[in-house]
Amino acid sequence: MNLIVQKYGGTSVADVSCIKRVARRVKRTWNQGTKVVVVVSARSGVTNDLISRANAIRKQPDDREMDMLMACGEQETISLLAMALHALSVPAVSMTGWQAGILTDGNHSRARIREITGGSIRKHLRKNKVVVLAGFQGLDDDGDLTTFGRGGSDLSAIAMAGALNAKTCQIFTDVDGVYSADPRTVPDARKIPAISYEEMLELASSGSKVMQTRAVEFAQKHNVVFEVRSTFSNKTGTTVKKKVKSLEDMLVSGVAIDNNQVRISVTDLPDRPGAAASVFKVMSETGVVVDMIVQNVARNGKANLTFTVPSEDAFRAEKALKEEFANGGGGKLGRSTKIAKISVVGVGMRSHSGVASKFFEALAEVGVNMLMISTSEIKISVAVNPDDGEMATRVAHAAFGLGK
Amino acid sequence: MNLIVQKYGGTSVADVSCIKRVARRVKRTWNQGTKVVVVVSARSGVTNDLISRANAIRKQPDDREMDMLMACGEQETISLLAMALHALSVPAVSMTGWQAGILTDGNHSRARIREITGGSIRKHLRKNKVVVLAGFQGLDDDGDLTTFGRGGSDLSAIAMAGALNAKTCQIFTDVDGVYSADPRTVPDARKIPAISYEEMLELASSGSKVMQTRAVEFAQKHNVVFEVRSTFSNKTGTTVKKKVKSLEDMLVSGVAIDNNQVRISVTDLPDRPGAAASVFKVMSETGVVVDMIVQNVARNGKANLTFTVPSEDAFRAEKALKEEFANGGGGKLGRSTKIAKISVVGVGMRSHSGVASKFFEALAEVGVNMLMISTSEIKISVAVNPDDGEMATRVAHAAFGLGK
Repeated sequence: MNLIVQKYGGTSVADVSCIKRVARRVKRTWNQGTKVVVVVSARSGVTNDLISRANAIRKQPDDREMDMLMACGEQETISLLAMALHALSVPAVSMTGWQAGILTDGNHSRARIREITGGSIRKHLRKNKVVVLAGFQGLDDDGDLTTFGRGGSDLSAIAMAGALNAKTCQIFTDVDGVYSADPRTVPDARKIPAISYEEMLELASSGSKVMQTRAVEFAQKHNVVFEVRSTFSNKTGTTVKKKVKSLEDMLVSGVAIDNNQVRISVTDLPDRPGAAASVFKVMSETGVVVDMIVQNVARNGKANLTFTVPSEDAFRAEKALKEEFANGGGGKLGRSTKIAKISVVGVGMRSHSGVASKFFEALAEVGVNMLMISTSEIKISVAVNPDDGEMATRVAHAAFGLGK
Repeated sequence: MNLIVQKYGGTSVADVSCIKRVARRVKRTWNQGTKVVVVVSARSGVTNDLISRANAIRKQPDDREMDMLMACGEQETISLLAMALHALSVPAVSMTGWQAGILTDGNHSRARIREITGGSIRKHLRKNKVVVLAGFQGLDDDGDLTTFGRGGSDLSAIAMAGALNAKTCQIFTDVDGVYSADPRTVPDARKIPAISYEEMLELASSGSKVMQTRAVEFAQKHNVVFEVRSTFSNKTGTTVKKKVKSLEDMLVSGVAIDNNQVRISVTDLPDRPGAAASVFKVMSETGVVVDMIVQNVARNGKANLTFTVPSEDAFRAEKALKEEFANGGGGKLGRSTKIAKISVVGVGMRSHSGVASKFFEALAEVGVNMLMISTSEIKISVAVNPDDGEMATRVAHAAFGLGK
């Protein structure tokens, strides 16, 4: 089908005048003769209002009821946007997640999509109507409403684009694409015209939060091509797809910085199998995601273990470890420090040695000390002092010739 | 089933503390070992907010989209009330209209209920859960959301009570029952313990707007007994049912006043068949509901016609009539005046003459001039000058011995 799926987030539909602007944009696309499905989020602020009302009633509200509550947010937006399209003489019809047959498992607040039937979407599209779909929500086997968690509307858009075999899926956001580095830190950062799913995932998990990783993973799995672009301009954005051919065969696509990690040290760990594992078992049971891990070689039968966790989880992680050690688990909790994680990402580095040495040399030249190093197939990350983070990003960006 | 259906309107669930109070009330009922279905409206103010946002986008929004928008209001309330019940350790589950299988025709904003399947309500009730149901809304054959219009949540409650064969249906409101007259006008007005559907309907249509007539008509048709009572007290309210036995065999149950009518006069109407009919055809085409009608005997081949319409429709009615007369329809528009309509209502008057004469004598004694009279089987209404309205209500109330 000659179909475009467009997704607009909460800031793009924040109020009546924003909604009217989105309607004009949708009309332009529809006027070109393509079918259009528009996926929208709740107006920004609405979700927080609903949550604060729920919390005024109960500190930990039931998940099922939170999903029932949250689903109101998008339902408001879809009807308002449909009205705004009508006002521009564009035939349009709003649909909730359940009406569009977005079927999920029963994990409230973090449901996974199982199947998309589409409901009457195809019928409406055949009549040349714009379908305005509520993002972020679906229906489980019990007939209960479910929601997808953070970035859920991106997921709805990409999954629907896949199910309807859309020509493309456009994710409208407040940035005009994926950049080789954060332009606020690196003034000569370049917009990347095309990027692979893998690189997009590594950049996202390294702190360039243009999109949540979950929607990108879904697109990768189902091979859905999408474009990240700006609501506020007409510029082409960044296309995200399976294989990206680059004329220059770039080794590195981008440099990301994550200022939101804390390094936790465990000293005096018994040097026997299972000692480190028991530390990460505690982290896992506490629900803390561990990122970089370094273990020193043991001396005198004791080893040191260092790892990073998101700042908001640091207190919880330390508390759990203290209890573990107090209860006889081997080890001592060292001092925790904030770090900045700098990552260079690129599918090109897979077949090239030399990326790591170039990266490390660049840091050494400006006297930035590396506290930890971790690598994946297409990413090299180093932890540095938070004060060195921006400088490290700039020199890495320059070292790989990513500037304009 | 040992089931009570309770309905709480928008002012009863206006904010978090109101919702908590309703939850405590529901818990008391549930603690007595009965099953409970609670039907709620949108928080007061929410519906108006949604409407004003829609109107900022479009003056006459599409009916289907308005229903999609309006349905958010109750969906918010049901989840918040379910959470408030959880906080009191009462197992509860929220359900939208479509989840409860409330199936309607496709007349958006004024849908009529066709069937109620109940969805999984019975399953939840068997598990002793309180079901919190969204009032005012249903689902049509196309899978679209529909709403019922004014008083729609009363209708949901009564229809659900009928479908589930509930023991009783309690309509919680801001008054503690149906009174023999408005206590603000008649200080010794008495709460009526029990009243018939017919009397309730006549009182409602005569200006005692405790409930919309539509829900009462539904209850009458399906023989659903319900009680109107206050959210803010524990007093027994007024039971509305088919036949009411009164120890005193009251001729008259209540006196109602309607200050919201305008009397329109048409003079010089040709005295031929169809002349009056054409006037009411115009009113019907304009969508104006005509209430009292008086036609004088014709003199000199001309007749005078007087009728009343709701104040908010008066301008529209006059405009339509002027056009009709300008286009050659016989008649002239006379001067319109506001009136007050006083009605005495009671099933007892059916078999008794003398009610009219007692009513009229009471008005004559205090010098109140009757401008129009109309009667039904169980109601006598007179139109009087607005300034005489309250006095007329008080003397009628006293004449039929309705005081405490």
